[in-house]
This record gives sequence, C-alpha cells and structure tokens, in this order.
Amino acid sequence: MLSAIAIQTLTDLLGVENVLHEKEDLLTFGYDATPQLHHLPDIVVFPTHTEQVAELVHFARDEGLPIVPRGSGTGLSGGSVAVNGGMVLCLTRLNRIREIDEENLTATAEAGVVTLDFFNAVAARGLFYPPDPGSQKVSTLGGNIAEDAGGLRGLKYGVTRDYVMALSGVFGDGTTFRTGGKSVKDVAGYALKDLIVGSEGTLAIMTEATFKLIPPPQSKRTLLAYFKDSRTAGAAVSNIIAAKIIPSTMEIKDRATINCVEDYVKIGLPREMAALLLIEVDGHPAMVAEEADGVRAVLERVGAAHIEEAADVDHANQLAAARRTALSALARVSPTTLLEDATVPRSRLAETFDEIERLSEKFRLKVGTFGHAGDGNLHPTVLCDERDQDEMERAHAFYHELYDKVLAWGGTVSGEHGIGLAKKDYLARQIGAGGVSVMRRIKQCFDPSGGLNPGKIFADEPKEN
Amino acid sequence: MLSAIAIQTLTDLLGVENVLHEKEDLLTFGYDATPQLHHLPDIVVFPTHTEQVAELVHFARDEGLPIVPRGSGTGLSGGSVAVNGGMVLCLTRLNRIREIDEENLTATAEAGVVTLDFFNAVAARGLFYPPDPGSQKVSTLGGNIAEDAGGLRGLKYGVTRDYVMALSGVFGDGTTFRTGGKSVKDVAGYALKDLIVGSEGTLAIMTEATFKLIPPPQSKRTLLAYFKDSRTAGAAVSNIIAAKIIPSTMEIKDRATINCVEDYVKIGLPREMAALLLIEVDGHPAMVAEEADGVRAVLERVGAAHIEEAADVDHANQLAAARRTALSALARVSPTTLLEDATVPRSRLAETFDEIERLSEKFRLKVGTFGHAGDGNLHPTVLCDERDQDEMERAHAFYHELYDKVLAWGGTVSGEHGIGLAKKDYLARQIGAGGVSVMRRIKQCFDPSGGLNPGKIFADEPKEN
Repeated sequence: MLSAIAIQTLTDLLGVENVLHEKEDLLTFGYDATPQLHHLPDIVVFPTHTEQVAELVHFARDEGLPIVPRGSGTGLSGGSVAVNGGMVLCLTRLNRIREIDEENLTATAEAGVVTLDFFNAVAARGLFYPPDPGSQKVSTLGGNIAEDAGGLRGLKYGVTRDYVMALSGVFGDGTTFRTGGKSVKDVAGYALKDLIVGSEGTLAIMTEATFKLIPPPQSKRTLLAYFKDSRTAGAAVSNIIAAKIIPSTMEIKDRATINCVEDYVKIGLPREMAALLLIEVDGHPAMVAEEADGVRAVLERVGAAHIEEAADVDHANQLAAARRTALSALARVSPTTLLEDATVPRSRLAETFDEIERLSEKFRLKVGTFGHAGDGNLHPTVLCDERDQDEMERAHAFYHELYDKVLAWGGTVSGEHGIGLAKKDYLARQIGAGGVSVMRRIKQCFDPSGGLNPGKIFADEPKEN
Repeated sequence: MLSAIAIQTLTDLLGVENVLHEKEDLLTFGYDATPQLHHLPDIVVFPTHTEQVAELVHFARDEGLPIVPRGSGTGLSGGSVAVNGGMVLCLTRLNRIREIDEENLTATAEAGVVTLDFFNAVAARGLFYPPDPGSQKVSTLGGNIAEDAGGLRGLKYGVTRDYVMALSGVFGDGTTFRTGGKSVKDVAGYALKDLIVGSEGTLAIMTEATFKLIPPPQSKRTLLAYFKDSRTAGAAVSNIIAAKIIPSTMEIKDRATINCVEDYVKIGLPREMAALLLIEVDGHPAMVAEEADGVRAVLERVGAAHIEEAADVDHANQLAAARRTALSALARVSPTTLLEDATVPRSRLAETFDEIERLSEKFRLKVGTFGHAGDGNLHPTVLCDERDQDEMERAHAFYHELYDKVLAWGGTVSGEHGIGLAKKDYLARQIGAGGVSVMRRIKQCFDPSGGLNPGKIFADEPKEN
C-alpha cells in the first residue's frame, strides 16, 4: 500500500484521473492475456506527457517501488504483470501520432498508440506499416516494440524490429534517451535501439518511436488449401519457399482449430480436414498472378486435398479475419488456454506437427495448433482446466518435451511472445548459462537498481541462506 | 616484443605458417584502408579452426596483450588498427562456407570468407545475398558484420544486419557463444546478435555466421541521369521515393568524382555535369518496366539535363563497376584521401550537397562527393596532402562544421563505416554523454578486462593525475 502522501504526489503530477489506487480499480491491471498469472499492483499511473515518465521513474526509485511498464495488456508471456507489486506505468494515454513524413517514408508516434490505428493513419496517406500482431486492434506500438511483435505478414515483411528507426524514453536508471533517427543507415556506436526492441520493458520505458514505412502492395491474392494430414501441409510450406516464392502470409490451422473457429464464426470450413493453409501473395499484379499460379502448382504437386481461392477482397478479408480469431475460438471451449510459441527452422515444420500430435496423445491432452507456418512459428495451444491439477501437470510436461525437440532442431522457445514470466525457466536451456549471464549484466547497465520490471526474463536466482 | 617462449606457444598452437612476428611481416598489418593511421602490432596470428580463437583469447589475456580482430583490413574507420599494439587476430584463414541450406534459405560461413565469394557461391544455387559493400571483392563477412557494412543495394535490400541470423564466436571474456539460429523469428531474451553486429570487434570475435538469403530479382534496368546542379539531383532522389518507387540502387557522384572516375576508367562520362545519378530498379519484369518508366518521368519532371539507359546487362555492369571505382579514382589524384560517411534523412540530401559546396569553398579544399543517395549516405572526400599541416587542419575543420549540420538535421556521423579510431570524438556529439556511458558499460559486460580491441569507439577518458 502506498502512503496517502505518495498518492497525493502522483495525483498532483498526473491529475486525479490518471492515478488508480483503489483495489477494485487495480484488479484488472493485475492480468495480461497470459493464463494463470495475476498479481495486484500497488498503484497504476497513466502519464499523458513524455516528460512525466522520467519523473515517475525517479518517484518509484525514491519510494522503492518496482515499475512495470504496460500498454494494453495483450501480452502472452506475462511481461506486464506486476509479479512483485509496485507501480504499473500504463502508456495508453501517450497516444498521439506525432508526424507522418511522406518524404522520408517514416512516421513518429507515442508508445500508447493502438497498432491498427497507426496502420490506418499511415494507410490514409497511401503508406504501409506491415507488422500486424494478432492483437493489433487492441495492442499498442510500445508493447509491440517491447515484445518485438510479429504477425501474419512476418514471412515477407519481417517483424516490428524491422520497422523501428528511432526510440525515445527513459532508461531504468532514470536517464532519458533518444537513439536512432530518420537516417536509414546509422552505425554510430552499439545498436542500442536493437537491444531495446524486444527487451520486454526490462531495460527502458519507451515513450515514442519513429517507424519506417513502405509503399503498399498494389494487389493481393488469397488461397486456401486443405490437407488430410498435417505433414503434407508442412511439406507444402517448405516447397513453396523452395520454389522461391515468398508469400506475404502463410498461416496454418490444425483440425482442432478449424473446428473451434468454425463453431465460432461459421464460414463453412471443412471440419474433417487435418490442416488448412491460408496463403496470401502480394505485390505487383503480374508478379502476384505468377506467384499465385506457382503456389497452386506446389499445392497440387504435394497433394493438397482441396484448393480454393478467395473470390474477391471481401472474401479474402473474411478468411484472414477467421485466422485472427483462432485464439479466441480455442479459448471459448475450455476454462484455461495455454498458448505456446514454439518456432523452428521452417524445414522442420512437418516434424514439429508430428511431435505435437505424438505428445498430445502421450499426455492425453486436447491441443489445437495454429500459427505462422511460413516463419516456422507455431502456437500449440492446450485446452485445459487449471482446476485440474493433474491435467495442468501433463500440459507442462507436454511443453517441456516439445521444447526439447524444438531446441534440438535449432528452434527457439519464443518466436514472438517473449520470455516474460511464462518462459523464464526455458531461457537458459536455449541460450546457455553464459548467454543468460551476459544478459543479466546488460540489464544492470540500464537498470542498476533492478527496479524496472523485476522478475521478468531471468529465472529467480537460488536464494542464499 | 613478445618473448620467444610466447611466440613458440603460438607456433605450437597454430603452426609456424600462421604466426607473424618479424617486423617486416608486421608492417602491412599496421594499416587498414583508413588514411593517417599506422600502429605496429606485436604479433599477427591466423587461426584456422574456430576452437583456436578461444585459446588465443585466453593466451592474450594471460600475456596482457590487447587483441585486435581483423579481416581483410578494408575498414575505413581504423577499427582493425592495433592502436595499443598487441595481437592482431586475423580471421582470413577461417574461410570455409559450411552450408547452403536451400530449404531454409540460409547459408553458414566462417568469418574470413570473402564477401563476393560468398555472394557467388549462393548465386550458383540460385539464391541472393544482397549486401554489397564497395570492398566486396576483398572484404570478409566477419568484417562486414563487425562494421554492419552497407553497400550499393542498401536502399531496397538493407544492410548486413538485415541478413545475419546467427553468430558464433568468443566474447571478450573468453566465453564461447552462439546466438540466433535458422528460425526466422526469435525473441528469447535480449537481441545479443543485433548488439554484436556493428560492434566493431569490441565485444566479441566472430568465427561463424548464418545468413538469410532471398530469391534473386528476375530482372533489372539501369538508368543514368546527369544534372547541371547537385540540388536538382537531390530533388530527383526525394521525388523518386515520394513516388513510392524503391530502386535497388540510387548512387550519386559529383563533378569532381565524375572527372576522377572518367580519368581512371574512360567510359565517356560527361565532365561538365555537376552530378550523376545511377539508378537501378529490379524485380519482376512487369514491375521493373513500370518503375523504370516512373523513374524516368520523375527525372524529366525535376529537370535532369540528360537521361540514358543501359543498353544491356554488360553496359549496366560497366556503369555499376564505374561507381565502385569512385574511391580508387579519387585516391589517385592526391597523396591523402580523407573519406567521410555523413548520413542524413534523405529529404536533406540537396541541402547537404549545398553545405558541402559552401564549406569546401570556405576552407579552400578540393572535395569529391559520392555515395548512396537513396540512403542519404554521402562520402564527401577531401583530396589533400597530409604533409601540408595547414590543409589538414582546414580539412578537419570542414568535417567538424559539416557534422554540426548533419547532426542538426537528425543525421549520423557514420552510416556504414563505423566509429573505430577515426570518429571517436564525434560519438558523444551524436548520442550524448548518457548514451556513451551506457555503451561503455555494455562493453564491460562482454569484455571486463577491456583487452578486446581497446581504444576503439570510445574517446579516451581524461587522464587522472
């Protein structure tokens, strides 16, 4: 509990409407989109001007309060959950788009701007911001940067990191910073910008960013392919890439996901199929025509059970929207939805599906898998009930064994959701003790007191007696 | 001087052919391609197996020898010059291409592989490695990564950083590491890979890297445009981008460079023109046709004096080769060639040319400017004589004033050559004392003893009495 004086100080700084301290107000800020995690913060603050952020960092340090930066709370690894209590510093009211620079193809926005609002604002000027995480209607740009969010267009267009040109904000030690700029090349010193992207709010609080924009693709075609087994779907993905076609989107859903989505949105997906690929090619119309034909030829050659093409833009958008509902659709059917983020070199996709199937049988679990097949980035999702302790133990054993294989194949424990709280125990398995050790030291460079988003990314050190 | 015992230890480890310690052998390893810098190392070693690199790091630490990693020595900021003596660890004999993985579109190679050899090896499999620094015939991949090298294709295809997927090597503290992999998305912990790219050999010694490859463009068209003033050339660049055309290459040469190149290669460049743009568009033939027409329309609209198109591939290659000779051509005409690397948001290009012209008159200097116009990355090159102390002082004053403007416009003191020794005094002007301070702390995370490439990037700290 904060003292009345401390609350008054914050109210004086931010205005009464930008400080929450009553328990009923704090409750919803104890969660993000990660299941099984809830920790009440002591206070939630909403800066409305960037200068207030440094003041809040100094205030928290003086009060000994941990700081937990937060956007819209759509994170899937618990990165914005106040595991040690403290101050949730919510950036959603820093939400101005500062500039769209058509000459340099850049746009500058505050951290709390909603991703889709930003996409639409630049689209209105005839420009394109490709990163489109599943939560884009709600998520903020700051959260996307903190997690290096991916999305459906990652295969061709890359992820959030590839579009961040400059960052401003406050380091954990209270120093304000600005790194990068509108120059498309900059090698002056170490790549601080790249280090901060994906650092999950543990090094710095971002207040503003400048993004690279590109000209939008002129046309797009959307194909759907159904498969009687997921191995063939995996082979289709590898073969399309090997044919030197880079679709903008290559999304996969397995049978369980197809059925949950169909229950939810009722667009006539064939429930009997083992897997579905949603493939979009975009760019110049002539290239799109050739690539769509090329994709179709590969799908026929590997033996897709059925291939169809979106009749028009509305139909294509409907199919993409159905893909975006995968997580919501799965989440409806069970009390608890454990969503994972296993990513493998794309040549291992078919084997990964086999392994998920084998392990879900071994551990008697209901698993729906969907994801960004072209990136080798799968979201095997265990549909379970956290009140059933035995089932939860089996679910964790499932992931544990799955990650053994993923890591043996040169994959990663997180393709786009981050380590946060949920994956802390996996990090050292992937990058080794030496890698973890240098990362801990890097955190100290930015946040010597350790007050910025403590308890995230790194496993708790063994307590000394 | 190293002791005979120390030299024998190294000879036992590497073989006599991989250790240089006689002064006449050390001489050429005291330079890189940066003028006015020469420092003799105590010893030069050539590991031929990656495991030897960690042993060399431990040896150097035990002997108290600074380590200076080096590739082919084509660097333009003095990054591989042994300013404090010590051991030059030359990676050119770690030069195997380990794998070209056509299914995952990756290739893995040792640090000492020559850039163009790598390009050709993947091209033979129908794949494309875009980064093409000016020194690609000689430079090594490890050096390219250390400097985050750019090149002529940066505008459309990005720089070395954009193609590095995994790195292995040895941190400054002797720990071996491997970071990243063949997964196209990976957010497990901080972006060590991105931090090491561009760190100029001050954090780690790279021994091997895995690169992303892409399908090659199917066709290309090359245009040349001449201008009676450089401001119009700058306007052409901005207008092409604003027309939403992203050429693969948009290179500029000013009058002095045109004349020096023509003296050198004699391909009929018009000596009376103030500026020349070399523009390449590539991709699907239908798109290329439209983009070439679009570029031509912009060039006509802004008032290019003359526009011509390469008749065929040979002609296009000849034009591109002529661009690549710019530095060599300038270097022929004066004893000393001071090459800078000023980079601005591309909307500032025309103003930057004006400023270079104004300052070269003010300081009575002969300056040739060429560079990657599409990236806003210019190489204003002072043609001078280092024996003329007054001229050298004017040259440095020229750069000092130029960088004031470049930084005021949101540019950078280095777009692609790095800080090294040559730009140490400029770094704090760009990123501020706070930024330099956190970078110094980051170096300590990787290299606590400070023995890895000491004296680079950071200005010498004031000596205490």
